[in-house]
Amino acid sequence: MLYAVILAGGSGTRLWPLSRAGHPKFLHPLTGTSSTLLQATAERLDGLATADTTMVVTGVAHAAAVARQLPDLPDDNILVEPAPRDSCAAIGLAAAIIAEREPTALMGSFASDHLVADVAAFQSVVRAAAVGAQAGKLMTIGITPTRAETGYGYLKCGAVTAGSQIRAVEEFAEKPDAERAESYVRSREYLWNASMFLWRVDVFLNELARQQPELHSGLRRIAAAWHGPRREDRLTEIWPTLKKISVDYAVMEGAAAEGLVATVPGTFGWNDVGDFHTLGDVLPGDARGNVVLDDAKGEVILHDSADVVVVPRTHRLVAAVGLTDIVIVDTEDALLVCSRGRAQEVKAVVDALRSRGATDYL
Amino acid sequence: MLYAVILAGGSGTRLWPLSRAGHPKFLHPLTGTSSTLLQATAERLDGLATADTTMVVTGVAHAAAVARQLPDLPDDNILVEPAPRDSCAAIGLAAAIIAEREPTALMGSFASDHLVADVAAFQSVVRAAAVGAQAGKLMTIGITPTRAETGYGYLKCGAVTAGSQIRAVEEFAEKPDAERAESYVRSREYLWNASMFLWRVDVFLNELARQQPELHSGLRRIAAAWHGPRREDRLTEIWPTLKKISVDYAVMEGAAAEGLVATVPGTFGWNDVGDFHTLGDVLPGDARGNVVLDDAKGEVILHDSADVVVVPRTHRLVAAVGLTDIVIVDTEDALLVCSRGRAQEVKAVVDALRSRGATDYL
Repeated sequence: MLYAVILAGGSGTRLWPLSRAGHPKFLHPLTGTSSTLLQATAERLDGLATADTTMVVTGVAHAAAVARQLPDLPDDNILVEPAPRDSCAAIGLAAAIIAEREPTALMGSFASDHLVADVAAFQSVVRAAAVGAQAGKLMTIGITPTRAETGYGYLKCGAVTAGSQIRAVEEFAEKPDAERAESYVRSREYLWNASMFLWRVDVFLNELARQQPELHSGLRRIAAAWHGPRREDRLTEIWPTLKKISVDYAVMEGAAAEGLVATVPGTFGWNDVGDFHTLGDVLPGDARGNVVLDDAKGEVILHDSADVVVVPRTHRLVAAVGLTDIVIVDTEDALLVCSRGRAQEVKAVVDALRSRGATDYL
Repeated sequence: MLYAVILAGGSGTRLWPLSRAGHPKFLHPLTGTSSTLLQATAERLDGLATADTTMVVTGVAHAAAVARQLPDLPDDNILVEPAPRDSCAAIGLAAAIIAEREPTALMGSFASDHLVADVAAFQSVVRAAAVGAQAGKLMTIGITPTRAETGYGYLKCGAVTAGSQIRAVEEFAEKPDAERAESYVRSREYLWNASMFLWRVDVFLNELARQQPELHSGLRRIAAAWHGPRREDRLTEIWPTLKKISVDYAVMEGAAAEGLVATVPGTFGWNDVGDFHTLGDVLPGDARGNVVLDDAKGEVILHDSADVVVVPRTHRLVAAVGLTDIVIVDTEDALLVCSRGRAQEVKAVVDALRSRGATDYL
C-alpha cells in the first residue's frame, strides 16, 4: 500500500481547442471510455492505494472539478495550491503532509494526464519499484522507448541490481535533439522519464532538506498546519515565497549524482496524450485508422478518409471527404483543423491568441 | 440592348454545407465581393440590359430572396415557376413573355451561378453574339477550354463566318470521358457549352414550335395571360403538364442539325463555381494560395498552411495548422473538411444524408 499523489496541473496547450486553461486536459474523457484522464489515473491505482491514501495536488481554478470527478477522496486529500509553483513545491507539499500522518510512508507521484493501456503491467512495475523505494532509493519508472522521441526527458541507466528489475539511474538527460535521441534509443541505456516517482517520504524529504533547505522548511511548516485552523494563514504567508522549480532539477538530478536514484523499466502502453496525433495513436479506431472521440454529441460522416482524428464537441454534423492524417476538433467557439504530423504546432496557435490578448479562446 | 433572362434554379450540392436546398449557391456571396452570384450576374449585364429588361426565372422557395437581392427589378420580371420543369420550360416561358412585349426582341439567357473575371471581355463577346442573333441564328457563347474537363458539355464548331468571330455549331457533345475530352481540347474544334444563349425570341419560339409543339403552345398560353388576372390559373392548369426537358435536348441539338446554331468563342475567366476546389481557384488568395471567403463573421488563423479554402459562416474561430489543399466550410449546423482534389465528392455526403432522411442538413 502506498500514498498515491496525483499532480493535476498544466493546461495541455497542444490539445487546444479541446483543452483550455479553464478546462484542462486531465478533466476530459480522452481515454476511450467515459472516464476522464484524471479519473483513469485514480482507477489505475486501485489496489495500490485507497481513497484515503490518494491525494491530488491541483490549482484553485480546478479544485471544484477535481473534487467532483473524484467524489470518494476526503476533502483534506485535495491539496489546492494558491498559485502554481512548479512540481517540486507540489510534490514536496504532498510528501510533507503524508509525513505528518506517517513519517516513513511509501509515496508514489503520478501525472494526471497520461494514458496506460496495460494496467496490470503498470501495477506490476509499480510494485517492483516499491521494493527499491522501501530500500531507501528515490525510484522512477522509466518507459522503454519505442521511438527516438525529442519531446521527452530521458533517464540514463547504469548497473542492474542482481535478482531484480531495478537499475541505477546515473543521470537525468534533458530533451535531446533528433540525433541524440536516436543514439539514446540505440544504446538501450536510456529510458523515457515519465515523471512517475516512488519513495519513502522520509528519504525524499531528507534529500529535499539537503538540496533545497528553504523549500523544505517552508513546506514542512505548511504541512504541520495542514490539519488545523492555520492552514490558510501558512499557505498565504509561505507559499508565495517558495522556489519555483521542477522536482527533476531541484532534487532528482542531485540525488542521481549521489547514487540515490534507481528505476524500473516499464512497458505498459504508456502515452502522455501530448497532442492529438498521439491521442489518435492510442485510442481505438475503425478499420481505416479513423478515431472519433466520444461521438455522443455530434454526428460524424467519414467519406473515404483514413487516419483521421475527430473530436466532436458540439451538436453539429461533421463531414470529412477524402482526408488522410487530419485532426478535426469541433468546439462551440473554436474549430481546429490540423495536419496530424504537425499536431505539436497547435501550441503556436495558442501562443498567437495569447499574444493578441484573445483570452476568451485560451 | 437585350432582354436578359437569368435562370436562378438548382441547389449546388457540391457546395454543401454552404449551399442548401433552402439557400442555394446563387444566393451566396461567392464572388470575392459582397455581391451574391445572382447579383454579380445582373451587374455583369449592366449596359447590355436595364432593370426593366432583366428577368429572373426562379422557384417558389427562392422568389422572395431573389426579389430582395435584386430590388430594382419590376415584380413582373421575376418569373416564379410553380415547380421546376427543367431549362426548356424556364427559358421558353421567358421568351414567350418577352415576345408578348416585343415580338422580335433580342434575348440572352444566363446562369445565375457562374463567375466571370473579365466583364469587359464578356460584354464584348455578348455584343459579337448579338450580331449573329439579329441575323437569325440561335447563338451560344462557347468558352475556350483551358483543360480537358469531363464535367461539361462541349460545342463542336464548324466554319468561321468571314469577317466575324462567329463560328457555326455542328453538334452539342455530351460530357465526354477523359480521353475524349483530351482529343476535344487538342482539336481546337470544341468549346465548352456554358449554357449562355442569345437569339431573337421569334427565332427561338419558331424552333420551339417546330420541335416541341406542345411545350410551345402551353408556354404561349401562359405568357398571353402573364400580365392579366389569369396568370395564376394558367400556371396552375398548364405548368404541371409541360415536358421536363433541357433546352439543349429540346431545341438546340435539333437546331444545330438544321444549321441554325452558331457561337462566339469567349475567354473571359469563366468559372461555373461547381465546387469548393474551383471556387478556391477563381477567388483571390494570399501569397500561399489560401482563400478565406467573406471573413467578416468568424476569425481565421492560418498557421503554415497553403492552398486552403476556408468558408467561415459562424462566429467561431477557425484555426488551420500545417494544412495543404484542404477545404473547410464552417456553418451553424454542419462542418465540412474536404481534400480539395476530392471536392466533387461532397455530393456523396449530401446523397448519404438524403438517403438516411437527414433533411435538416440538406
